[in-house]
Amino acid sequence: MRLLLLVTSAALLIGAAPAKTPLTPNDIVANSPGSAWKAIPADELMVIDLRSGGRVVVQLAPAFAPVHVANIQALARSNYWSGSSVYRVQDNYVAQWGENDSGKPWPKGVVPKPPAEYTRPLNGLKVTPLGSPDPYAAGAGFAGGWPIAYSPKAGWADLAHCYGSVGVGRDLSPDTGTGGELYAVIGHAPRQLDRNIALVGRVIDGIDKLSTLPRGTEALGFYKDKAQYMPISMVRLASEIPPAGRPSYEYMDTASAPFARYLKVRANRQDDFYIRPAGGVDLCNVQVPVRKKP
Amino acid sequence: MRLLLLVTSAALLIGAAPAKTPLTPNDIVANSPGSAWKAIPADELMVIDLRSGGRVVVQLAPAFAPVHVANIQALARSNYWSGSSVYRVQDNYVAQWGENDSGKPWPKGVVPKPPAEYTRPLNGLKVTPLGSPDPYAAGAGFAGGWPIAYSPKAGWADLAHCYGSVGVGRDLSPDTGTGGELYAVIGHAPRQLDRNIALVGRVIDGIDKLSTLPRGTEALGFYKDKAQYMPISMVRLASEIPPAGRPSYEYMDTASAPFARYLKVRANRQDDFYIRPAGGVDLCNVQVPVRKKP
Repeated sequence: MRLLLLVTSAALLIGAAPAKTPLTPNDIVANSPGSAWKAIPADELMVIDLRSGGRVVVQLAPAFAPVHVANIQALARSNYWSGSSVYRVQDNYVAQWGENDSGKPWPKGVVPKPPAEYTRPLNGLKVTPLGSPDPYAAGAGFAGGWPIAYSPKAGWADLAHCYGSVGVGRDLSPDTGTGGELYAVIGHAPRQLDRNIALVGRVIDGIDKLSTLPRGTEALGFYKDKAQYMPISMVRLASEIPPAGRPSYEYMDTASAPFARYLKVRANRQDDFYIRPAGGVDLCNVQVPVRKKP
Repeated sequence: MRLLLLVTSAALLIGAAPAKTPLTPNDIVANSPGSAWKAIPADELMVIDLRSGGRVVVQLAPAFAPVHVANIQALARSNYWSGSSVYRVQDNYVAQWGENDSGKPWPKGVVPKPPAEYTRPLNGLKVTPLGSPDPYAAGAGFAGGWPIAYSPKAGWADLAHCYGSVGVGRDLSPDTGTGGELYAVIGHAPRQLDRNIALVGRVIDGIDKLSTLPRGTEALGFYKDKAQYMPISMVRLASEIPPAGRPSYEYMDTASAPFARYLKVRANRQDDFYIRPAGGVDLCNVQVPVRKKP
């Protein structure tokens, strides 16, 4: 059986001289202390239950798009998305869901025309630089657990569109979208969208429930008829779920020493399978480790 | 209906002042002359028919991995893969297929231990530079219709692992794989594999027949039991298919002026939806246009 990418588990290292067996990124994650991890507040977890039985969990990013995230939290709390659907899936691009222009009224507390939260001030972020060049911005790295691009000169930072990123569907500018229609990236990072649309978070569990959906055959991956829609049973914040059944996650602190090691090894794979380490890595090829809280 | 990414079709531009309406990448492809396109030889098209009824078409790259590609052509001609399966699908990574260690003997003409065709000489390639920095190599661009990375100093070039790239599964080095087990990238570009494994081509049609398959639940995305495998009915070269039913494709010449314009616009989107053009683009975010031959 050709494995293509062997994972060297810590167990396999027993008996080997540790100095001669370079660690994999997974080794570093598995061996990191609890202090390198930060819990995600239950109010910042959006839990989407699909009629297929699949569950998709989204971590929200209030530090980057506070008005849009507050809208999404208000929409979840008011049960706005029950009965809505995933209505667009475009291969190597996005899966998109929501009310799809049903005209459903906004619940109380929703700001219908949020500001263009496409960037935020760089000031106030603790940035761990990527250490490799980025084609899309002068700077790239990680802050608060998120992949970001930034301009030290102009002073802005933005969330980067990577696999799993969740953003707010919108019409043409100056419309910024309200938050009722969302998309998740299910392909190669469409970084051209950075600074052109509001990102509000990322899928941290269950992305395969979206990425395996049939692709829509209409332009832009819209489904041809409503029978193809994937219905959404319920969307809740984790904080609305009784504690006994509440899902709970943590992410690796991107300002921690284990994350710095993880980043370095992602850019310089030297474990068994690799012959020539790249000596560099692109922003979206370094996924910030997220796991269920032990 | 929030479209998220409007495609401005040429039809919509009628009546508008052309100078004020920036072209989309699709506009450039649609308006390019026939001279900007190159036919793919029928011997360099591998047609994979799945039991699901889906068809996946792979363009082979003999200019980069001649021995592995010749193996694959010999395997296809001998009907080696009939009855084999897709046995591994890992989300945001690869779908892999073949005999999965069945011990089936190699047909005549197959080189069991090919050389490590991970790079080729840069010399002899007509390179169109990407024009943006690449984290994985000193140079990145396009040659002969393929996305490549290269080192002007060391003189090598390699095919880049992008969405849809097809490579040869292998065990640990110095094994290079024979070609009987292949994978296709179905997620963000895993460029760390560049120069560590032989790429032999790319999926040019039907990638969704692989990318929508259920993800395997075992380590590395292997399916837990054989009932989950997606059987392969038949793999043929297009040259083996009678002309009346033979699929035929062409790719945009990456040394052509329309491709240079396409590349420039991919890096500087200014059509309706975009407010802030990036001023750069990453290699795998520029897909070389491929279409059915008119």
